[in-house]
Amino acid sequence: MSDKTALIIGAGAGLSASLARTFATNGYKVALAARNADKLADLAKETGAKAYACDAASPQEMAGLFASVDRDLGEPEVAVYNPSARVRGPVHELDADKVRDAMLITGYGAFLMAQEAVKRMLPNNRGTLLFTGASAGVKGFPNSSSFAMGKFALRGLAQALARELHPQGIHVGHFVIDGGIASSYGAKEDDSTLSPDAIAETYWQFVNQHRSAWAWEVELRPWVEKF
Amino acid sequence: MSDKTALIIGAGAGLSASLARTFATNGYKVALAARNADKLADLAKETGAKAYACDAASPQEMAGLFASVDRDLGEPEVAVYNPSARVRGPVHELDADKVRDAMLITGYGAFLMAQEAVKRMLPNNRGTLLFTGASAGVKGFPNSSSFAMGKFALRGLAQALARELHPQGIHVGHFVIDGGIASSYGAKEDDSTLSPDAIAETYWQFVNQHRSAWAWEVELRPWVEKF
Amino acid sequence: MSDKTALIIGAGAGLSASLARTFATNGYKVALAARNADKLADLAKETGAKAYACDAASPQEMAGLFASVDRDLGEPEVAVYNPSARVRGPVHELDADKVRDAMLITGYGAFLMAQEAVKRMLPNNRGTLLFTGASAGVKGFPNSSSFAMGKFALRGLAQALARELHPQGIHVGHFVIDGGIASSYGAKEDDSTLSPDAIAETYWQFVNQHRSAWAWEVELRPWVEKF
Amino acid sequence: MSDKTALIIGAGAGLSASLARTFATNGYKVALAARNADKLADLAKETGAKAYACDAASPQEMAGLFASVDRDLGEPEVAVYNPSARVRGPVHELDADKVRDAMLITGYGAFLMAQEAVKRMLPNNRGTLLFTGASAGVKGFPNSSSFAMGKFALRGLAQALARELHPQGIHVGHFVIDGGIASSYGAKEDDSTLSPDAIAETYWQFVNQHRSAWAWEVELRPWVEKF
Repeated sequence: MSDKTALIIGAGAGLSASLARTFATNGYKVALAARNADKLADLAKETGAKAYACDAASPQEMAGLFASVDRDLGEPEVAVYNPSARVRGPVHELDADKVRDAMLITGYGAFLMAQEAVKRMLPNNRGTLLFTGASAGVKGFPNSSSFAMGKFALRGLAQALARELHPQGIHVGHFVIDGGIASSYGAKEDDSTLSPDAIAETYWQFVNQHRSAWAWEVELRPWVEKF
Repeated sequence: MSDKTALIIGAGAGLSASLARTFATNGYKVALAARNADKLADLAKETGAKAYACDAASPQEMAGLFASVDRDLGEPEVAVYNPSARVRGPVHELDADKVRDAMLITGYGAFLMAQEAVKRMLPNNRGTLLFTGASAGVKGFPNSSSFAMGKFALRGLAQALARELHPQGIHVGHFVIDGGIASSYGAKEDDSTLSPDAIAETYWQFVNQHRSAWAWEVELRPWVEKF
Repeated sequence: MSDKTALIIGAGAGLSASLARTFATNGYKVALAARNADKLADLAKETGAKAYACDAASPQEMAGLFASVDRDLGEPEVAVYNPSARVRGPVHELDADKVRDAMLITGYGAFLMAQEAVKRMLPNNRGTLLFTGASAGVKGFPNSSSFAMGKFALRGLAQALARELHPQGIHVGHFVIDGGIASSYGAKEDDSTLSPDAIAETYWQFVNQHRSAWAWEVELRPWVEKF
Repeated sequence: MSDKTALIIGAGAGLSASLARTFATNGYKVALAARNADKLADLAKETGAKAYACDAASPQEMAGLFASVDRDLGEPEVAVYNPSARVRGPVHELDADKVRDAMLITGYGAFLMAQEAVKRMLPNNRGTLLFTGASAGVKGFPNSSSFAMGKFALRGLAQALARELHPQGIHVGHFVIDGGIASSYGAKEDDSTLSPDAIAETYWQFVNQHRSAWAWEVELRPWVEKF
């Protein structure tokens, strides 16, 4: 059994569940965090993970989450950020307050996770930060200005951190998920939605890359997805 | 004399002053807005512009600004967003509250301007939105995670809006300013800092592009700047 | 009347004609080159330009072209490269010889022009190289592997030259033309094809940019074009 | 033992050797091809691979290579393209003939491999094409116009093929290798050059990605490499 801890923020069904299983199977102690910890109960039970409630866009709650994980499982060596939110529609029709909240959850919360994780990883010059992005982070779509702001911000953060932290031994990954994830949109026999287990496998490989050949961004989409 | 109004947010010395002069010279009525309107007094006097105080990251103040400009000068046909803020340093040392504020000023305020401007431009299917970006919006630099988030978000917004609004007759421009601007960093005889008049000239050309050949992004840097 | 000479390669109808008129109107002596010089006769007559035959993918013919222009009009201070060729279809069905020729015309010929032009421009530390690219140079489309190779190569060349030559006073531009050009595809009342005059106007503005604020790439498309 | 065949073009020391070992270890029959087959003798002996001589930029030789592999080992299900060439120096000082040859080896040869491979893979709707690129394929460096043309062309080819072939079941990968490879530049204890085994491991993972979550491009660099 490894002594390592992986923290997965934005846990729940789908990708986060596959990630939890993947890390648990590979000997990690797993911490799951979501705004509503009740939703994590089944997954925590299944994977032996510990569940935490956390508003990811709050500096205080993020600091509290890491303090709890430190105490319960040990400082995380892997930290994954999945949360995102958006408001859809023509720019002039969007609710400005919801747009701000979506931007903070999608981008700023990732920054807060990075701050807490890096404080713990830097003294050891090791650790991995993983950010779940979207095609909206590399291409701004019409009627999607809200999501474009949040996911572009997330990508900018990840790229800046890769340049800042790689030479200090901390590996930073940004994943451009382009397409619906099977658990959310329904698995299709023709594999036209992304299998969350397949995504988790790629995250796991990323964590284990040799430091002489590190990636920082990986773009994943179903074979039949237009791009 | 044109009946057109140009609104320049983030006015003051440097680029905003050059833009104010350029639009005024070409017959526009010019509205200048900044957090502190006092700083605009000289420029307003020189260019015949009207000055307004506005916290660009506040939906209420942005709505109030546009209402005032409507009343005083007429609905703006051109709206320029210049404000930006950042916090420099290693990610784990940054003040989280300042990072959030910088992200909101740099990215979210531009969204708020777009909302108000588009409400006025859409009924006429004409108008131009101009966003002043930076190289930090296309490349995330080390110790610059704060600026990366804000300027990437701004670029994502501009790209999404270009795709959304171009087919409705509203032209959207994102300018990647790569280098120091002469007015802020001191003009150099060798032109190694960007002349704000030269930048303003390119903005002006952008506003006047024929709709059969519209750009959406322009990258400007001094001839000697490394990139 | 200027003493300056502009050389436009790939001359003929459409963009090249608009460029010839634009430079001639602004006092440049204009040299036109195409594989078949007969096609240039009308345009040369109209604009007072001189026409040359040249296979742009031949080092010998390119050298000869520049020698002739030097002698007839003086060394060019502006050189524009327009030629391109492609073979359409699924990758395994393409004629390999035609693909090679298309790649050489589209990419390698531009390199040859750059070599000759730079030899003349470097001693004066001034001059402008303009390369006409396409959306195929930034996005590889299905059934378009031939065009992708040529236009990506052209963009790589232009970007490398911008980094190499800007600090030596030579301005390099790559234009991403995204959409049909009106002269080739028929002008549409709704401006859904690019006006060659509008494109030429943007090239002209590029040539005249202040060196403290140089662009290197400009993307132009009709307002209604999807991207 | 698998019935599958992997063809590695540009074989020799370094990456190709690691790839040969990786595929052989995983049960593939391996075909190695290089301009000079003598150089492949040791590696072929070690891995049980079969070695072939081939000028990759010749349509006839490429067709002959595939015909030989078909006959000896069976149609390849994986095809890897490694060859590249360049001429370094200021654009106006380069030997034009060598630049053309470098462009053809780096870009056009990859196209020829794709043609032959796709003819064999399409009837089965399966197979993988892997192209070894470089940072020069995403960024044009000064004094590197030759390499920029070849590697940009290669990337354009790979991207066009990914869009064309993914929906037909053929997986296409472009690898941006950013840094020196240990076997060529000397392994460093601090892992500041890329381990060819580490690169080969990532290629192998790519080949085995689930089709619901395919990547098309992976960027690899040492942890300490600036980018």
